[in-house]
Amino acid sequence: MAAADPPLTAVRFGIIGCANIARKVSRAILLSPNSTIVAIGSRSLEKAAAFAKNNGFPASAKAYGSYDAVLEDPDVDAVYIPLPTSLHLHWAVLAARKKKHVLLEKPVALNVGELDEILAACESSGVQYMDATMWMHHPRTAEMKGFLADERRFGQLKAVHSIFSYNSGADFLKTDIRVKPDLDALGALGDTGWYCIRAILWAADYQLPKTVTALRDAEFNEAGVILSCGASLQFEDGKIATFYCSFLSNLTMEISVLGANGYLRVHDFVIPFQESVGPFYVNANTKFAELSIGIEPSPTEHLVKTDLPQEARMVKEFSSLVRKITDHGSETEKKWPTISRKTQMVVDAVKASIDKDFQPIHVVY
Amino acid sequence: MAAADPPLTAVRFGIIGCANIARKVSRAILLSPNSTIVAIGSRSLEKAAAFAKNNGFPASAKAYGSYDAVLEDPDVDAVYIPLPTSLHLHWAVLAARKKKHVLLEKPVALNVGELDEILAACESSGVQYMDATMWMHHPRTAEMKGFLADERRFGQLKAVHSIFSYNSGADFLKTDIRVKPDLDALGALGDTGWYCIRAILWAADYQLPKTVTALRDAEFNEAGVILSCGASLQFEDGKIATFYCSFLSNLTMEISVLGANGYLRVHDFVIPFQESVGPFYVNANTKFAELSIGIEPSPTEHLVKTDLPQEARMVKEFSSLVRKITDHGSETEKKWPTISRKTQMVVDAVKASIDKDFQPIHVVY
Repeated sequence: MAAADPPLTAVRFGIIGCANIARKVSRAILLSPNSTIVAIGSRSLEKAAAFAKNNGFPASAKAYGSYDAVLEDPDVDAVYIPLPTSLHLHWAVLAARKKKHVLLEKPVALNVGELDEILAACESSGVQYMDATMWMHHPRTAEMKGFLADERRFGQLKAVHSIFSYNSGADFLKTDIRVKPDLDALGALGDTGWYCIRAILWAADYQLPKTVTALRDAEFNEAGVILSCGASLQFEDGKIATFYCSFLSNLTMEISVLGANGYLRVHDFVIPFQESVGPFYVNANTKFAELSIGIEPSPTEHLVKTDLPQEARMVKEFSSLVRKITDHGSETEKKWPTISRKTQMVVDAVKASIDKDFQPIHVVY
Repeated sequence: MAAADPPLTAVRFGIIGCANIARKVSRAILLSPNSTIVAIGSRSLEKAAAFAKNNGFPASAKAYGSYDAVLEDPDVDAVYIPLPTSLHLHWAVLAARKKKHVLLEKPVALNVGELDEILAACESSGVQYMDATMWMHHPRTAEMKGFLADERRFGQLKAVHSIFSYNSGADFLKTDIRVKPDLDALGALGDTGWYCIRAILWAADYQLPKTVTALRDAEFNEAGVILSCGASLQFEDGKIATFYCSFLSNLTMEISVLGANGYLRVHDFVIPFQESVGPFYVNANTKFAELSIGIEPSPTEHLVKTDLPQEARMVKEFSSLVRKITDHGSETEKKWPTISRKTQMVVDAVKASIDKDFQPIHVVY
C-alpha cells in the first residue's frame, strides 16, 4: 500500500522582511491549501503590521518589529526570506539553526561559498531548503520537460538560449536595492540571469557546463553593479548555451531549446502572461516542404492550465516536503539545494569571467 | 513629374548549374513579372534540357552543355549562379566580364578577398550584383524594420539572437556538396550561419561589430568542415548579438531582437512557414502587472501578406535594378554588394575565431 498523503495540517510561515516580492509570495502562501502565515517581522513594527493588514493575513498572524522575533516564535515552522541578497547568509543560517525550514528568495547568496554555509546549516538542522524560483513549479515546466525527454520528437539537446530582461526605469536604477553594491552586488546577473541560468541547467538535466564565458561586453552602473550581461556555456558533449539578462531592455522572458529532432520555445517562462494558463511551442522532425517552400509539419502550440498560480504551487510543494519531514520523519529533499547550488556556481562563473576580462572559466563541481 | 517606371520588358536570365535550389529560383524568375528564363547551362546537355523541361521553362529557352555557352549567349541579360561556393569566384567574375548582371547564391564566396574580386568585376562592367538572400525581400522584413526603427515602441537596440539550423540527415552528411571541403568549405557557417549573420547586421542597420568571438565549441566532420557553430558579436555601443547555426539540429529559423523599449521575434525568417503570409510578434513598453502577476500590454501578432513569394520579389527587385541600368543608364545599386560584403566579413571573422581557438577577432572595415 502506498504511504498516505501527509495530513493537511497547514505549514505555518513566518516572513522576514516586507519586500515587494513578499506581497506576491504572501498571496501564494494563503492560496496554497497546506500553508498559512502566522508571523511577519520587519525592522519596523508598524511596517510589519501594515503589511499584514494590506496583504490579507489571518487576523491571528503576529507582527514583529524584528526578524529575530520571527525566528524565536515557536509557532513558526518555516520562513520565507525576501531580504536583500547580502543579508541571506546571516538570516538563512540563523533560521536553519532555529529549526525553521527555509524558502529563500533568489539570488540565494552572493557566491557559492555563502550558499554552502546556508545549505550546511539546513542540512545540520534537518530543515528543508528551497529557492523561490517559481517557474520550476508551473505544470507547464514538467510538460515541456516531457517534450525535451522525447527521443523521437526532440532527441539530443544541441543548443539553449534564454533571455530575461526588464526595463527597470530611471528611479529603479537610482534607488533599488538590486543595483546597490552592498545589498545585491550581483545586479542583473543575480536578479534576472539567475532565471536564464536555471533554464539552461533545467534543459540540460542539471548537467554543469565545462566552461562559462561571459559575452563582451557587460554594462555596469557607476558603483560597478552589473546592469546587463550575457554568457556562453560550453558542455562536455558539444552542446552550447547562451543567455542575456538585463535591467535595461524591455520585459522579455524567453527560453529556446534546440534538439537534433525538435525545437521548443516559451516566451513567458519566468511569469506567465496569463496566470491560469502557460503556453509553449514545439516543432518536431521539421522538414522543408517540396521546393523548400514552407515546412512540414507546422509548429504546434501547447496550453497548460494550472489550478493554482505557479508561486502557490511552489509553496504547496515546499510545505508538502516540510510535512513529510515533520510528520513522517522523511529526509529532506536534496533536489532543491542541489539545483540551487549548481545555479549559483554558474552565476559565480559568469561573474568571474566578467571580472577576468571575459576569459573562459572552468566550472568544477 | 516623377520618372516613369522602366518598361516591362522582361530581364532575360541564364542559369548556370542545375542545383536543387535552382528549381526554386527558376520558379521565382517565371513568377516575377519583369523576368524570364532564356537559357540554362550544365556540364551535361541532357541534364540541362531535362531541368528546363521539368521546371516549366519557356519552350524557347536554350539548354547548353556548358556554363560558358550561357555567358556567351547575347540573349542573356543576367545570370543566376547556384554553383558550389568554391566555383563562385571563377564564374561570377567571368559573368561580369561578359556584361551579365549577377544574382549570386549564398554563401557568395569562400572569403571576402574572393568576394572583392567578384564585386570589382561587376563594378568594372557596370553590372548589378545581388546575393540570393531571399528573406530580405519579403514585405514582412520591411515591416519588422519599421518596428525596430520606432524609438517609442522599440528604442535602442540592445541584443539580437538568431538561429538557423536543419537536421540534414545521414545522406546529406555523407554526400552533399555543403559538407565537402573542396566545394563548400564554410559548411554550416556558410549555408546557415550566413542568414543569422545577415539577420544581425540587418537588425543593427548594417553596423559592423567591433569583435566577433566564436562560441566554444563548434562541431566538424572528418574533413574539418563546420557542421555547427555559434558566435557572439560585440558592438561599439554595447549591444550584443549571438547566433547558432547547424546541420545537426531540427529545422529552426529564429530572430529575436531586444530593445530598450520593445522586443521582436520571428520564427520562420529564412523561409516563411506559409508562402503567402509572414507573421512576426512584438512586445512594446511591457511592464509587470500588479503584484508581478502577468504583464501589460500583451504581445501582438502581425501578419504580413505577400502577393509574390519572397524569392520572386527578390528576382523582381533585381530585374528592376537591371532595367534601370540598361534602359535608363542608372548607376548600379550599391546597397546589395555592400551588405553582401559585410555579411562575408563577419562569416570570415567567425571562421578565423574558430581557427584561432575561439579568440576574439577584431573586425576592420
